[in-house]
Amino acid sequence: MRTTDMRVLRVALLGCGVVGSQVYRLLTEQSADLCARAGATLEVVGVAVRDPARPRLVQVDAGLFTTAAEALVTRPDVDIVIELIGGIEPARTLLLAALGAGKSVVTANKELLAADRAELHRAARQHGGDLYYEAAVAGAIPLLRPLRESLAGDEVRRVLGIVNGTTNFVLDQMDSSGADFGEALARAKQLGYAEADPTADIEGHDAAAKAAILASIAFHTEVTTRDVYAEGISAITPADIENARSLGSVVKLLAICERCNGGISARVHPAMIPRVHPLAAVRDAYNAVFVEAEAAGRLMFYGAGAGGQPTASAVLGDIVAVARNRLAGLRGPDASTYAELPLVPIGDALTRYYVQLDVVDRPGVLAPVADAFAQQGVSIKAVRQEGRGEDANLVIITHTAREAALAKTVANLSAMPAVRAVDSVLRVEGEEGE
Amino acid sequence: MRTTDMRVLRVALLGCGVVGSQVYRLLTEQSADLCARAGATLEVVGVAVRDPARPRLVQVDAGLFTTAAEALVTRPDVDIVIELIGGIEPARTLLLAALGAGKSVVTANKELLAADRAELHRAARQHGGDLYYEAAVAGAIPLLRPLRESLAGDEVRRVLGIVNGTTNFVLDQMDSSGADFGEALARAKQLGYAEADPTADIEGHDAAAKAAILASIAFHTEVTTRDVYAEGISAITPADIENARSLGSVVKLLAICERCNGGISARVHPAMIPRVHPLAAVRDAYNAVFVEAEAAGRLMFYGAGAGGQPTASAVLGDIVAVARNRLAGLRGPDASTYAELPLVPIGDALTRYYVQLDVVDRPGVLAPVADAFAQQGVSIKAVRQEGRGEDANLVIITHTAREAALAKTVANLSAMPAVRAVDSVLRVEGEEGE
Repeated sequence: MRTTDMRVLRVALLGCGVVGSQVYRLLTEQSADLCARAGATLEVVGVAVRDPARPRLVQVDAGLFTTAAEALVTRPDVDIVIELIGGIEPARTLLLAALGAGKSVVTANKELLAADRAELHRAARQHGGDLYYEAAVAGAIPLLRPLRESLAGDEVRRVLGIVNGTTNFVLDQMDSSGADFGEALARAKQLGYAEADPTADIEGHDAAAKAAILASIAFHTEVTTRDVYAEGISAITPADIENARSLGSVVKLLAICERCNGGISARVHPAMIPRVHPLAAVRDAYNAVFVEAEAAGRLMFYGAGAGGQPTASAVLGDIVAVARNRLAGLRGPDASTYAELPLVPIGDALTRYYVQLDVVDRPGVLAPVADAFAQQGVSIKAVRQEGRGEDANLVIITHTAREAALAKTVANLSAMPAVRAVDSVLRVEGEEGE
Repeated sequence: MRTTDMRVLRVALLGCGVVGSQVYRLLTEQSADLCARAGATLEVVGVAVRDPARPRLVQVDAGLFTTAAEALVTRPDVDIVIELIGGIEPARTLLLAALGAGKSVVTANKELLAADRAELHRAARQHGGDLYYEAAVAGAIPLLRPLRESLAGDEVRRVLGIVNGTTNFVLDQMDSSGADFGEALARAKQLGYAEADPTADIEGHDAAAKAAILASIAFHTEVTTRDVYAEGISAITPADIENARSLGSVVKLLAICERCNGGISARVHPAMIPRVHPLAAVRDAYNAVFVEAEAAGRLMFYGAGAGGQPTASAVLGDIVAVARNRLAGLRGPDASTYAELPLVPIGDALTRYYVQLDVVDRPGVLAPVADAFAQQGVSIKAVRQEGRGEDANLVIITHTAREAALAKTVANLSAMPAVRAVDSVLRVEGEEGE
C-alpha cells in the first residue's frame, strides 16, 4: 500500500509509559491500515523520555529515544506531537512550543487541559495547528467528539458520569466485600488500579479536571478545574455503603455538569444512586457517562476509562483525524466558548440529601428535626425512624433543594440537643423523573 | 448574534413528517445557537412535501411548502439538502440530483444507504458535496461518527447491537407480559411503536440495512443489504421466551457484524443472550450497540433509537458539520472501502445453538442425538433432559460451530425416529469469554 510518492507525516512522541508504549506499538503494527485511513504514512521520528535506558513495555527502536524534548517538538520535519507525559509542567511548555512551531498536537493530559485549555487552543489557532484530546476524558470511550460534533445541533442539559476508575474500583470493593475505605484502597493499589500516591483520584481532583473539560464542550463555555467543586471518597464509611444498600442504592463518585438557573453547575462528589440506574452497574475500573440533551434524550457511553491500550485507541483516533486535517491543509474544531454561561457556586447547585441522625429516643424529637428542614425551605421526601434503646436512628431523604440550604440544615441539626450526632450526609442523584 | 454580514447557508428540507417537522422546529428555535456553532445562519428556504395542505406536527411557514422536490434540490441558492422521506425512490433520484448540483446532503435514509451508499458517496466526491447520515443508524445515538473517527486508529472486531426499536418492544412485551407474538405486535401498533405494515421491522430488513451501514464503516468495506443475512422475530413463540428465561437468558433481535475467517459476517437474527448482559437490559424501543475493538476493548452506546426528536438531534449534528465544512471550503470523510474484505456466507458464520427436542422417553435416545451433533463436528456444551410421561424434553446447547454444520445437525435430528419434533432452535450470543 505504501508507495514512493505516498505522503509521510512525522510524529514525535512525548512519553513512553503505559499509554505511550501502546501508542508506539499501534503506530508500528497497524501502519498499513493507518496509512490507508489517514492518507499518509505516519512515521515516528522521536520519542522523548527522561531515561532512555529504562525498560519499556514494548520494543522501541532505541535510536528514537531522546531526552531533548523541546528540541524534538520544534524539529522542522515534525508534523504531529503526541503528549503522554501528563501533569502541568513540562507538558505545558512543550505543547506551547510545539503549537508555536505550527505542529498539530494530540494529548491525553486532562490536568493541563482543565487548567489551560483556552491558551492551548489559542496557540493552535494562531499558528495553524490542531489540538485534539479525546483520550483526556474517559479513556477509550468516544465522548468529546460526540459531544462536540454529534450533538452540535442539540442542547445538552446534563452530563452525569463515572469518570474515575480508581474511585469506582474502591467503592465497588467496599460494596461487594464490605471492606472499609483503607482496605479497599490497599487492594486497588495491589491490583494496579491506584497509584502509589492516589490523592488526585481519591480526592476527586482527577474527576474534576475531566468535569471541567466535559462542561466546557457540552456548554460552549470556558470552565477550568477551579470552577469545579470537588469532594472525594475518603470519608465514605462502610455504614454509608450499608445505608445506601438498605435504600436499594449504591454509592458512586459522580461528575455532574448541568444547566442550573441560567448557568452551569459543575461538581464532583460521591452520591447515592438507585441500583436500577445503569450507572450503578458500572463495575471495577470502567467508566460510563450519561448525556441528556433536549432533543436526543438520554444517551449513555460505556467502556474502559483508563489503561494503556484503551487510552491509546483514543489517541490513535485523534492522530488519524489531525493527519487527515493536515493533509487537507485545514484545522479541526476550535474551543467553542461563545455561550459564556456563568458558573454557579456549589451553594446554589440543586441536589437532594440523605441525612442519617442519631437522636435521643423520646417523643417529640421528630417535630423539631422536621422544622429544621422547613426553616431552610427544604422539603422532606421520606423519613424512617428506628428505635434502638435510648437512642434512635433517623433517616431523612429530601426533595431537590439548594445545596446551601441543605448544608445549613445539617449544621443546625448538629447543634440541636436532641440530635446526638449527624452520622451520615450523602447526596442523592439519578432518580426517576429528574 | 446575527449580523448583516454574517454568512447564510440555505437549507432545503425533503419531507416534513415525524422527523422532518422536528428538524424544522430545531432549525428555527435554536437558530442563534446553531449560527454560533456552524458559523453561519441556517435558513430553511423550502420544504418539499406531497401534500402542502396536510396538517403538520409543528408550525411551518406555509410559503415554504412545495411539491416540486427536484426543482428545490437543484435550486442554485440551496447549499444543504436534508432528506427525510425514506425509501429508495424518489429519494435516490433526488439525492443524486442534489449531489450532482454540488449540494451537501444530510439523510436518515438507511434503506437507500444500505443499497446505494457507494454511488451516493461517489456523486458527493465528484461534485464537491458532503454526504452525512448519522441518523440512519440508531437514531440519536452517536455511532457512525465514533466508529469512523474515534476508532479510526483501532481495529474493530465486532459490532453487536439492538438497532430496531419495534422488534425490541415486541420481544420485551413477550418477555414481561407473557403475550404471544401477535398480541405483542398489536400492542406495539396501538402505542405507535410499530407501523401499520410492520414487515420491514419484524422480518429484520430494517436492522439488516443498519447492519450493512455499520459493517461498511467498521470494516472499511462495501457492504449492502444484500450481503446481510436477515431473520426476523415472527417465528418466536412464548415457549422460546420461556426457554430463554429458564436458562437465565432473554431473546433479542441482534444485528451482528464481525470479523470471521479473514472476512466479515454481517447478520440479523433473534438470539438468546444472558440476562446479565448489558444488552438484555435494553427495554422498550431503546437501542444499544456494543463495539469491540482491539485496543479500545468493549464500548457500549445506548439511547433512543428512533422518534422524531432524537432522530432530529442526529440530523442537526450532521447539518452543523456539513455547514462548517462548506464554510471552510472542504469536505468531510468519504466512504472508506480500502480493506475490501470478503463477505462470509451465513453458512460459514460462527455461532452457538440452543436446540429443544421433543423425544420419545426411552433409554438409548440420547446417544444417537449426541451422535448427530458429533457427525457434523458440533461440540455440545450442555444437555438437559426432562421426562414427562411418554416423551421427554431434551435441551442441547452447543459450543461455537459453523452455522451450516448446526443447520445440518438440526435437519438430521428432525429425520430421526426417536425425535418427535424439533420444538425450538435459537442462536445463543453474548456469553462471557466470547
